[in-house]
Amino acid sequence: MPMVQVTMLEGRTTEQKRKLAKRITDALVEEAAARREAIVIAFHDVTKESYASGGVLMADKGK
Amino acid sequence: MPMVQVTMLEGRTTEQKRKLAKRITDALVEEAAARREAIVIAFHDVTKESYASGGVLMADKGK
Amino acid sequence: MPMVQVTMLEGRTTEQKRKLAKRITDALVEEAAARREAIVIAFHDVTKESYASGGVLMADKGK
Amino acid sequence: MPMVQVTMLEGRTTEQKRKLAKRITDALVEEAAARREAIVIAFHDVTKESYASGGVLMADKGK
Amino acid sequence: MPMVQVTMLEGRTTEQKRKLAKRITDALVEEAAARREAIVIAFHDVTKESYASGGVLMADKGK
Amino acid sequence: MPMVQVTMLEGRTTEQKRKLAKRITDALVEEAAARREAIVIAFHDVTKESYASGGVLMADKGK
Repeated sequence: MPMVQVTMLEGRTTEQKRKLAKRITDALVEEAAARREAIVIAFHDVTKESYASGGVLMADKGK
Repeated sequence: MPMVQVTMLEGRTTEQKRKLAKRITDALVEEAAARREAIVIAFHDVTKESYASGGVLMADKGK
Repeated sequence: MPMVQVTMLEGRTTEQKRKLAKRITDALVEEAAARREAIVIAFHDVTKESYASGGVLMADKGK
Repeated sequence: MPMVQVTMLEGRTTEQKRKLAKRITDALVEEAAARREAIVIAFHDVTKESYASGGVLMADKGK
Repeated sequence: MPMVQVTMLEGRTTEQKRKLAKRITDALVEEAAARREAIVIAFHDVTKESYASGGVLMADKGK
Repeated sequence: MPMVQVTMLEGRTTEQKRKLAKRITDALVEEAAARREAIVIAFHDVTKESYASGGVLMADKGK
């Protein structure tokens, strides 16, 4: 029963999440012998004001 | 100080979360000897477009 | 497909987790209309050196 | 590559998150020898209806 | 800077995680236009005593 | 009641976690007006075989 939590910057489309869900699930089935129906994936979209790398908010990058 | 993170499809009411918070907390106090005031629970609501099982988005199920 | 992640201090027995898993699942089924088979719960045990409240490691409390 | 997930009640400003991101990153660099560019921080804001302590939703406190 | 957290039953080999890391990363790069170097993946292995579905610990299944 | 989850490569000492817990907590109190006693921090140590960036396990880096 693998649980996958993906935290990404908001803005991905439903079509992108659809493909990601399929490919991540396929990988778990084919490489880790997980049972397909048991795999759950959640996408947590965060805003640029709620995401930082290197100590700098994404909202402040490139300024 | 147990931390509980519940990721669910959006749509649950405040009343449902109120009851869940109470019952999950009661369970931790009664079964795991956790101190009541120290138990924190967060509900992360995700949309049907951000949740998948079996490699298929909830938004696409039943289509 | 609710996913529940419980982060607790290590030391809980299998019997305690068994009861917690049952009660948390029952709560989600009865209060939030979740489908029983779809509920996944993971317990993440952390050591006293890896858990802090109020800025103080559990390992340092009561010293 | 430390990943930091901060779950807080909603309402913090971008300026507060900017300072938190900087200080948490500085702490990881200075105390844990993490590489600055490799540190990722996500803030998950939850509503008062989605956050409970002691078995009571934040929305119900003080009532 | 996508963060991916995979919670699975323990027992997967390093080779399985190696392939999963590669395929999940490839999926994020190709489908979600994420920058490869910015993708971080953590595998959280849990024991059969710390994982439940349908309210039953994995350790108790099939008994 | 902020919850902070830090996922890092294993190997940090208790002294390093002690300082991190203090500094992260101080930051939340001073910058986000969080109540000190209500802040909970968990460190999740992962092995080099369970952590990847850029699609490559930390165990394989520098080979």
